[in-house]
Amino acid sequence: MRCDRLWKDARLATMAGEGLGVVDHGIVAAKDGYILYAGPACDAPVLEASETADCEGRWITPGLIDCHTHLVHAGDRAQEFELRLAGASYEEIARAGGGIVSTMKATRAASEAELVRSALPRLDALIAEGVTTVEIKSGYGLTRVDEMKMLNAARQLGVERHVRVATTFLGAHALPPEYADDADGYIAAICEDMLPAVARAGLADAVDAFCEGIGFTNAQAGRVFDAARNLGLPVKLHAEQLSNQHGARLAAEAGALSADHLEYLDAAGTAAMARNGTVATLLPGAYYFTREQQLPPIGDLRAAGVPIALATDCNPGTSPLTSLLLVMNMGATLFRLSVEECLLGVTRNAARALGINSETGTIEAGKSCDLAIWNIDRPAELVYRMGLNPLHARIWKGQ
Amino acid sequence: MRCDRLWKDARLATMAGEGLGVVDHGIVAAKDGYILYAGPACDAPVLEASETADCEGRWITPGLIDCHTHLVHAGDRAQEFELRLAGASYEEIARAGGGIVSTMKATRAASEAELVRSALPRLDALIAEGVTTVEIKSGYGLTRVDEMKMLNAARQLGVERHVRVATTFLGAHALPPEYADDADGYIAAICEDMLPAVARAGLADAVDAFCEGIGFTNAQAGRVFDAARNLGLPVKLHAEQLSNQHGARLAAEAGALSADHLEYLDAAGTAAMARNGTVATLLPGAYYFTREQQLPPIGDLRAAGVPIALATDCNPGTSPLTSLLLVMNMGATLFRLSVEECLLGVTRNAARALGINSETGTIEAGKSCDLAIWNIDRPAELVYRMGLNPLHARIWKGQ
Ligand SMILES: [Zn+2]
Ligand SMILES: [Zn+2]
Repeated sequence: MRCDRLWKDARLATMAGEGLGVVDHGIVAAKDGYILYAGPACDAPVLEASETADCEGRWITPGLIDCHTHLVHAGDRAQEFELRLAGASYEEIARAGGGIVSTMKATRAASEAELVRSALPRLDALIAEGVTTVEIKSGYGLTRVDEMKMLNAARQLGVERHVRVATTFLGAHALPPEYADDADGYIAAICEDMLPAVARAGLADAVDAFCEGIGFTNAQAGRVFDAARNLGLPVKLHAEQLSNQHGARLAAEAGALSADHLEYLDAAGTAAMARNGTVATLLPGAYYFTREQQLPPIGDLRAAGVPIALATDCNPGTSPLTSLLLVMNMGATLFRLSVEECLLGVTRNAARALGINSETGTIEAGKSCDLAIWNIDRPAELVYRMGLNPLHARIWKGQ
Repeated sequence: MRCDRLWKDARLATMAGEGLGVVDHGIVAAKDGYILYAGPACDAPVLEASETADCEGRWITPGLIDCHTHLVHAGDRAQEFELRLAGASYEEIARAGGGIVSTMKATRAASEAELVRSALPRLDALIAEGVTTVEIKSGYGLTRVDEMKMLNAARQLGVERHVRVATTFLGAHALPPEYADDADGYIAAICEDMLPAVARAGLADAVDAFCEGIGFTNAQAGRVFDAARNLGLPVKLHAEQLSNQHGARLAAEAGALSADHLEYLDAAGTAAMARNGTVATLLPGAYYFTREQQLPPIGDLRAAGVPIALATDCNPGTSPLTSLLLVMNMGATLFRLSVEECLLGVTRNAARALGINSETGTIEAGKSCDLAIWNIDRPAELVYRMGLNPLHARIWKGQ
């Protein structure tokens, strides 16, 4: 069989089948950007490759997937961080121009090109650690024009860099000042104006909302989900981050791809997610950075068989984090996830949280040839270390 | 005045004087590797430079200093990490060959060249973030020959890379199996044989010990300090990490450069450190990785005026960490240190913890020209972000 590229003498963690799907003496063959064969060298068909790479025993995992980010935004909140450490109150920080409103203002003021330019170093940091797919949400524009500008910037990042970008419309992230005291009015604008425009332009691969006491109610999130369903768009939800709003159950019953955060998830929510196959996307960076004490119910999720994904939640306010390797370490250290759970969480289950698990997330014939090749002796090293990047090479769509 | 190199149009955080020692329109001039002038451009003498770099408004800090590492060691403990997450007991891990004994065995089995080779990726990760000085301890050899091999490897790292290495003899790190049940005998071997040999060979810049229930007693640490004093070597101590052994007080009263860890430090220890000018070297990576709940008494240290340093504690068992930027974030997030305290902790106070504060740690005329030049808008960004490296350039000894 002819193929374009062949990686030989590798150890594979395919993330398919049982556990990590380890293949000790493995090869991967790519043709037209897709995996033609991945598995034991001894079972492989006869392959004629235009280009062959000797992996010298290195480990290959699927390219990593960051399935929850707010990567596109203007400004940062370093000053707010500094003020808070110096003991400033929330009021003082608000007066100094802090909080999500400051990010909204900066994002509205920025051009699409400026949003792209400021996001590139963050995207490059992820890519440098083997990320081949990144989800990017809107949610700091909060007008039709500014939300579409953010989503266009996200799409443009996928043109500027060799990476798959999945976009998510998060108009229901915060209440813009134009709608102060009229959250229902803003939800109506989302459902009747913003989301239809975004959908028509093909700018969103999914729709998200922030269901929280300081965000939107369960009923409001439900209205956004209804509008998304009418437009044929899959949904997901920021749920149970700071309190139990029964958002995970709402999301699961709406057939959501994922419910994210979940520190305050209850048994009914876990059961609903398990019944509906909703992925639990955990965000230990936000847990760490905000010094949350309430752990997500990992044992319950595990017992119920809910698939667990991990992501950076990269955002300027609660998780200024651009390392998926560090996310895995936090998942293990703070949440006591196993090495296997962490690695599945940034590959197979992250793909499922984006609804693209037939395209990427495992090393299997027929999937996109998205690979990370590592200078390590065992996969656990990717979770164990902090601040060392052992990436040897990264392949996206066979290149 | 003639100089070799000039950095102009910079914002300086000199770390000298009050706070961060900020100079808004600053320049730095170097001659023969030392700083000839650093300060406001308008106050500068007339300078003729062989080479001028336009910093375009970028921030310059002193080159960063990692003042507590176990960077030289063989093997890793990723398997132990994985087993522990999977629920294995300490006994099971010990049976599987885990624990410090596994690092000792691997280190004893490694040649000096192998130790250098395996440490280089860790050193390179530190250097990539602007580190210009790194302390490296022995302590996994636990025989004269193997401890000297470790210290020689540490010295060699300073030859292989453009970085200042400060070595520390830590023979009293753990009890080697050859001395099981005879800790006093091992301390005698350290004081009478190992340490004198190390000192004669000029291999140690300081002497350290692990004073702990699972390490050595306060009295044993005192004997090591006495031997060090007789050889003219400064001392420091792993103190109060897991319990209060009154090690910080012992160290302070012995004139130690620093006492390190300090989670279980009491008021008498803090007072003794303040009286003697002993630096408190805090190691938030180990606190985080071991899931310690007891915070070091930051408020007491601050109130007493004890200088605070921060370091990676890079080691395979309790802190497999090679990012001083992440250490600063942990210092702020977990220990609630201010931005200023974090930055002083990896520059001026870290230099003091190594006894080299007349040589480096601040940007002042007469000091080694060790600089880190950053793509940031304010110094707080160095503490606020996780996983992004904004280093623009790194200068060590003017190069
Ligand atoms: Zn989010
Ligand atoms: Zn240590």
